[in-house]
This record gives sequence, structure tokens and C-alpha cells, in this order.
Amino acid sequence: MKRIDSIQNPSIKAWKKLLTKKGRENAKKYIIEGLHLVEEAIKNDAPILHLLICEEIDIPATFTTGSYEVTYISKEVSKALSETETTQGVFAIVEFDFMRVDIKSIKKVILLDEIQDPGNAGTIIRTADAAGFDAVILGKGCCDLYNGKTIRSTQGSLFHIPIIRGDLHEWITNLKQENIKVFGTALEGAKPYKESSKVERFAILLGNEGNGVNKELLAITDENVYIPIVGKAESLNVGVAAGVLMYGLS
Amino acid sequence: MKRIDSIQNPSIKAWKKLLTKKGRENAKKYIIEGLHLVEEAIKNDAPILHLLICEEIDIPATFTTGSYEVTYISKEVSKALSETETTQGVFAIVEFDFMRVDIKSIKKVILLDEIQDPGNAGTIIRTADAAGFDAVILGKGCCDLYNGKTIRSTQGSLFHIPIIRGDLHEWITNLKQENIKVFGTALEGAKPYKESSKVERFAILLGNEGNGVNKELLAITDENVYIPIVGKAESLNVGVAAGVLMYGLS
Repeated sequence: MKRIDSIQNPSIKAWKKLLTKKGRENAKKYIIEGLHLVEEAIKNDAPILHLLICEEIDIPATFTTGSYEVTYISKEVSKALSETETTQGVFAIVEFDFMRVDIKSIKKVILLDEIQDPGNAGTIIRTADAAGFDAVILGKGCCDLYNGKTIRSTQGSLFHIPIIRGDLHEWITNLKQENIKVFGTALEGAKPYKESSKVERFAILLGNEGNGVNKELLAITDENVYIPIVGKAESLNVGVAAGVLMYGLS
Repeated sequence: MKRIDSIQNPSIKAWKKLLTKKGRENAKKYIIEGLHLVEEAIKNDAPILHLLICEEIDIPATFTTGSYEVTYISKEVSKALSETETTQGVFAIVEFDFMRVDIKSIKKVILLDEIQDPGNAGTIIRTADAAGFDAVILGKGCCDLYNGKTIRSTQGSLFHIPIIRGDLHEWITNLKQENIKVFGTALEGAKPYKESSKVERFAILLGNEGNGVNKELLAITDENVYIPIVGKAESLNVGVAAGVLMYGLS
């Protein structure tokens, strides 16, 4: 049984670097925290390299039967690796793993254009999973999928459906060739989403919190829709808008 | 022109107390921050007592024509009052103002049962405003409406529609007497929301992030509905669920 007590330990120093985007990209690994997320990673065969368990907590027996290394850590080490105020003391170090998806098998997909808030991106991934979407495509300018806040907001859904970094222009072109209807979201030159006829296979393109979807992308969609604002609010939160459209167009 | 440079000034000390729930409740006032929120408060005639403006920023001319006191503050004071990382240096001190609403005029209303996350509560208020709902009722156990995070998440919608603290059992009883259909949200004994027949006047009852709506309340609704989960996610974020139902049942 391996055990690390000191935050000066070289492995801990290396894992702490995974709390920054640069550190994650150099190592091609990320860190997840909390019983629920670690359980989801194990259940869904995520490429876990190490499991770190604080000496004081009880874990399910299934946690220690994987092919990854299990290390027990002190409370002090647990605090050093945590991004939350009260840590549960369970962590996993996971390898980057951008899944692939065969476009021919896609029925419903979400395309994200410059979604910057990690909470929004994570919530959209969670909703896409819940609504039965086949994949989420992250275009350029999107926040880091492996940011702790993004991961926590997915509530584990990043282990359930493929999340792919890609060029949205290419994706839209390819989806259209595949006869998958691409809905853009826009305020101008668009119609209320409830007036769109429903189709079996479709994609929803959502844009930046402040500026919406890039115009060059809106120009190549099949149809652009909006969610009517009845009251005095200027807009909807993009995570909420995503949910309304995913369920509303299904 | 009044001007305060020191964080030791008694007014500043008193206003800093508004950053805590206890301080707000003692003073029956709250503080808002940022150009957009202050502008919304002014436009919607919120009961503003003081406007605080950092010397270095430009403000719209309309900001200084109200009946409230305007005080210029130093950068140091601005930082001391701010809850955000990069403050815009504009604040307003506003009196508590739980609006009233005539139940006879209500067409659509949201009831919140123990929603604890300020971001969720604020987002639901913003969506209720956008979707044309007439009011949001906060039952016991809900987070503080005047928490900075709740206010920021409303994006100003707390100045657009009445937000009322109330007893949900009483509200449900009264809404039903008024022939307003009350939809509860539950996983058991409920049907998919798309199978519900649409009605002109209705209420949606949403519950706690972890435990859902209290059973005693679900027992007295007209009908309970759920949003189908197709994928592997365990649930939807309650702010997203609220949006799906507000637009889906309308």
C-alpha cells in the first residue's frame, strides 16, 4: 500500500500542476475530485492512472479493484489537491481522452461556439447527456473541458458521451452532408423555435455568452431559431437556453 | 459632492456589513454592484438609498439625477465593498422591497421549495422574467434573494417581476382556488411534461437540488410532471429544468 503524507512529495507536486490548464496540457492528464465523479469515472472505464484516497474516508470496495495505482494520502495533501472548500478526500488522475464519434451514427449533437464559462459548458454537457444527445462538439474559444469547475458542472456526464474538440465550420458542413439539420441560434434572421418543424436528426449550435454565435457560422446553418423573450429580461443564460432547445426541438 | 476615501469611514463600515445575510437583515437593505445591475435598479424605480461611484469610472448621466444620495469613493473603498474579482466601481444601497402581487392577476407563477444555490435561484428568476411569468414565490429554506451571487445571476430580473417570500402550502391552496393549475415536479407518481395538456394559467413547483420537492407539497398539487432523462445523467440542473418546463408548458 502506497502512502504519501507530505505536500513536498514529488508526485504531489506534479499532480498539483494539474490544477492549471498549462499543467494539464503539458501532462495530458487531469484531476477529478469527489466520490460521485470518481465513481462515474470508474463505472465508465475512464483511463484512470492513479486513485488518491484520504486516510479518513470510507470508499466503496469497487474503488480499489481497478488496474490503476491506489495511493493513500494525508489530510494535508488532500487539502493541497482540492479546489473545493470542504474536500471529500477522493481524487483520480485521468488521462486525456477525447473520444471519437462516427458522424453516421449521430442523431442529435450540440455544437458550442466560444462558450467561455466553465459552469455553462459543464451544465450543457450534463443536459446533452440527459436529453439523449450523442455528442458535444467544442469549437475554438471554448473553455477548458478539464477545468475543475467544468468537470464538476458536468456531474460526471463527461464520462457518458463523447466530447470532441473540432472546427465548427467543418462540422456544420459535414453534418449537413449527412442530412443532419443544423439549427443555429440567433436573434436576427431567425424564427421562434416552436415554429420549426421537428426532425429526427439535428444539431444545435450555441454561442458565446455575450456575443452569441459567430456570423460566419450562422450563415451556413440550415435554419436559425430563437427562444422568445416575453418579459423584460435581455436574454437567457446559455445553459438554460441549451436545455430549452434540446428538449423543445426533440 | 460627497466623497469617501477611507475604508475606516463609518458609512463604509456599515455598508460592508451588507455583504453578509445577517447584516442585510438587520439593516433591511442590500448592496448591488456593477453598471448593468445599477442601471436596471434605476430604470425600474427600485428603492435606492445611496449610489456609490468610484472616481475613475464614467457613468451614464441618468445615474446622478435620482432622489438618492450620490457619493464618490476611492479605489480602495471600491475594492472593500466588492464581491467580484475585478469591480466596475459602481454600487447602490437598496432598501428591502418584497413586492406584492394580486393572485387574481396571475397567469403564470414559479414556486421554489428549498432551492439552496444562489446561482440556481437567480437563474430561475431571470428565466421566469424572460418567459413572461408574473411572479416567483420563495418558500422556506430557499437561499437569500439578496445574496450577491443570487442578484448577479438574476441579471437584473429581480427588478422586473415580483419575488415574494411565502408559505408554499398556502400558495398552492390559494392558486388552486383561483383555478390556476399547479404542476409539481417529481420522479414518482408523475408523467412526462409533454403529455400534460396545456392550460392558460399555471404554476410550476420546483424543489431542492438534492431532494426535490417536499412530499407534503407534491400531495396537494393538481398534477406532477417530470422531464424524461434519456441518457446516463442522473438528473438535470434545477435551473435548466425550470427553463425546460417554463417554456415547455407554455
